[in-house]
Amino acid sequence: MNFQDIIRKKRDGHSLSKIEIDYLVKGISDGSLPDYQIAAWAMAVYFQGMDDRETRDLAIAMAYSGEVVDLSFIPGVKVDKHSTGGVGDKTTLLLTPLVAAAGIPVAKMSGRGLGHTGGTVDKYLSISGFQAERKYSDFIKQVQEVGAAVVSQSGNLVPADKRLYAIRDVTATVESIPLIASSIMSKKIAAGANSIVLDVKVGSGAFMKEQEKAEELARLMVEIGKKAGRRVIAILSDMEQPLGRMVGNALEVREVIDTLQGRGPEDLLDLSLVLASYMLILGEKTSSLEEARQWISEILVSGRGWEKFQEMIRAQGGELKDELDNYGLPKAQYQKEVIAEKSGYVSNLNAFLIGHSAMLLGAGRARLEDDIDYAVGIELLKKPGDLVQAGEALALLHLNDEKRMESALLQVSQAYQITPNKPQKPKLILDIIQ
Amino acid sequence: MNFQDIIRKKRDGHSLSKIEIDYLVKGISDGSLPDYQIAAWAMAVYFQGMDDRETRDLAIAMAYSGEVVDLSFIPGVKVDKHSTGGVGDKTTLLLTPLVAAAGIPVAKMSGRGLGHTGGTVDKYLSISGFQAERKYSDFIKQVQEVGAAVVSQSGNLVPADKRLYAIRDVTATVESIPLIASSIMSKKIAAGANSIVLDVKVGSGAFMKEQEKAEELARLMVEIGKKAGRRVIAILSDMEQPLGRMVGNALEVREVIDTLQGRGPEDLLDLSLVLASYMLILGEKTSSLEEARQWISEILVSGRGWEKFQEMIRAQGGELKDELDNYGLPKAQYQKEVIAEKSGYVSNLNAFLIGHSAMLLGAGRARLEDDIDYAVGIELLKKPGDLVQAGEALALLHLNDEKRMESALLQVSQAYQITPNKPQKPKLILDIIQ
Repeated sequence: MNFQDIIRKKRDGHSLSKIEIDYLVKGISDGSLPDYQIAAWAMAVYFQGMDDRETRDLAIAMAYSGEVVDLSFIPGVKVDKHSTGGVGDKTTLLLTPLVAAAGIPVAKMSGRGLGHTGGTVDKYLSISGFQAERKYSDFIKQVQEVGAAVVSQSGNLVPADKRLYAIRDVTATVESIPLIASSIMSKKIAAGANSIVLDVKVGSGAFMKEQEKAEELARLMVEIGKKAGRRVIAILSDMEQPLGRMVGNALEVREVIDTLQGRGPEDLLDLSLVLASYMLILGEKTSSLEEARQWISEILVSGRGWEKFQEMIRAQGGELKDELDNYGLPKAQYQKEVIAEKSGYVSNLNAFLIGHSAMLLGAGRARLEDDIDYAVGIELLKKPGDLVQAGEALALLHLNDEKRMESALLQVSQAYQITPNKPQKPKLILDIIQ
Repeated sequence: MNFQDIIRKKRDGHSLSKIEIDYLVKGISDGSLPDYQIAAWAMAVYFQGMDDRETRDLAIAMAYSGEVVDLSFIPGVKVDKHSTGGVGDKTTLLLTPLVAAAGIPVAKMSGRGLGHTGGTVDKYLSISGFQAERKYSDFIKQVQEVGAAVVSQSGNLVPADKRLYAIRDVTATVESIPLIASSIMSKKIAAGANSIVLDVKVGSGAFMKEQEKAEELARLMVEIGKKAGRRVIAILSDMEQPLGRMVGNALEVREVIDTLQGRGPEDLLDLSLVLASYMLILGEKTSSLEEARQWISEILVSGRGWEKFQEMIRAQGGELKDELDNYGLPKAQYQKEVIAEKSGYVSNLNAFLIGHSAMLLGAGRARLEDDIDYAVGIELLKKPGDLVQAGEALALLHLNDEKRMESALLQVSQAYQITPNKPQKPKLILDIIQ
């Protein structure tokens, strides 16, 4: 087989056979294919696409290109949850104790954040003492004993995806739905869970700006999962505005703690309940969505979720202090209000600009090697639908480096749109695909 | 400037500015751009094309990416000739002495052949003792004294094109008209001539199979040349069938010698007369095509062309023996006839299959590092329009390695199409673009 012929075949709009895709993935993993041929193939895929069968074959071949996590030591149905990335998305932190308390083992490997969206592991790491790097045996033991563990990705999982993504990242070939679907699903399949709930974000703060494309991505990922013998459900959720009121690592952990104590924002709670309920269904704890919802609500209201959260944090070496000490979470040195210039209703709040401002303040990484400031971020005092008076504060910047203030301030101001009439409440759950 | 943004801009169908193209070419030449980004950009160009201005900017930036040949020591207008490559195309060998005898200095650097088309330098090298590698000062001196020199490309000419072509060659991105046009013209501009006659081949044996695409390529190359201050004329000529009756290095030299002595095939003579006439016009020897044609015919008939040919060969160390000794040209060990299975008229003779068969016999290179057997090749006894009887020979294979015979025999048979009715004579010159 000749890789140039494979590139040409894709360039000319034909489907690649499973044998050709296996050859490609093997060449990506073992280094026998050079970067430039992989790049040319990826650009050809950008223009010509891949059909469902090709996309499935690619995802599955990549999933098994390296080590695969074996969760069989943990009894029961293992359910994973994945978000395509959004601003203020702290649902994993909230869901994990809730579903674990319902008896679903959570054995999660998570990545670091990049760009305007935060990473789950980074959020946990803002807790004093929290350890994200765990030996595989300790990881499994913790899930067996506590019911939940969230650790950094480690080991040689999906080497083909790692190399392909690194090339796509610098050759303007990231924005291809079949390549995105197979990249995500290869990692989920290799992560070892039996079932997967996908949270596919749509809107300004999401990777997918248009619902139509997000639907296509969701459909493809569900397809791939099924073919690999997984049960998969995808929830399409709004990311036109940020989720919750806090954006930034320690701020988001604080919001999760507040939510576990019954004082959380409505949108975060709503989405988390839906995701958790589907996790219970895929985890075969119930087949009724209504029952699942009640179960999770009860865990939340009873405080069992908050207890499970603390238990997992302790098991991973984290130390949560008193509420008066902000649970030991780092606090930024300065706070700066973003002031409304006119009165009216907040009609839109651009999630991308908020995520980008938080990154500018140091909450996120522009490059993978950047350091993060866990304390900084943005507190959204007003959200779409809220009434605001001119001169009132829209948001609060939490920052440590005053030099970074000006541009963040400007972007946050620009993110807010204020109109005289009360807007419609944005719809949070846009579709469910299974 | 960020190269990924340049790739994305092209991917999304926008034109690149001159500054962006200069940045790109600089990065290709100095190695600061990695192969994979160049490959992704080339594939984006394959799909999105380049407009005329971009193509010109690319060609000119590449032309000046390294050394440029200085022919100013040679008095008069220097006219170069370039063919896009065909089967049996020995026009350079024939034209060079004819136009040199008319007072046009020929200072030509030529490449080696690859694939099913032969290279001019390879043909000269089948002459015993011929030297194609010359010091620059000797090259200029020979042109001043003899009026003509044809040498191998040397020095650091168009490094950007060299690297870009090497990448395109293995990433299925060769077949892009703006990239082909800028590659050819960058080399022609760097080669130092004032004026250029382009022979753009169309048909099965040519790189361009369709006349429409060949017209577009020709138009673009003429445009680029003008922008770079050159006078350029492009002749579109038929390459559906091979040119002349000989395919293979020493066989083609023999055919050139025969033609210079008045015994050449009609198509080779016709095309060469047209090309030579335009070289005389661009060389400002006359402004009348008719006068140019008569002048070249007279040089041919008088034997002055044959004399000039011998003079140039001697100047480059070559030794031509007697006609009875086949001028000292190597002869193949075996000859094998390809027999007609039915009677009728030859209606088509596929140039690609003939070129490919000659390569199989050892006359050409599948890879640049392959060795060539100068003696082998194919003698076409019948050409389109000729009448043939079943059992009569269509062609003669000249070969040294019997193991290579079978597949060449089969392909040559397949190249011939025989029909009961006399076909129309194919048109040789399809268009002239200036």
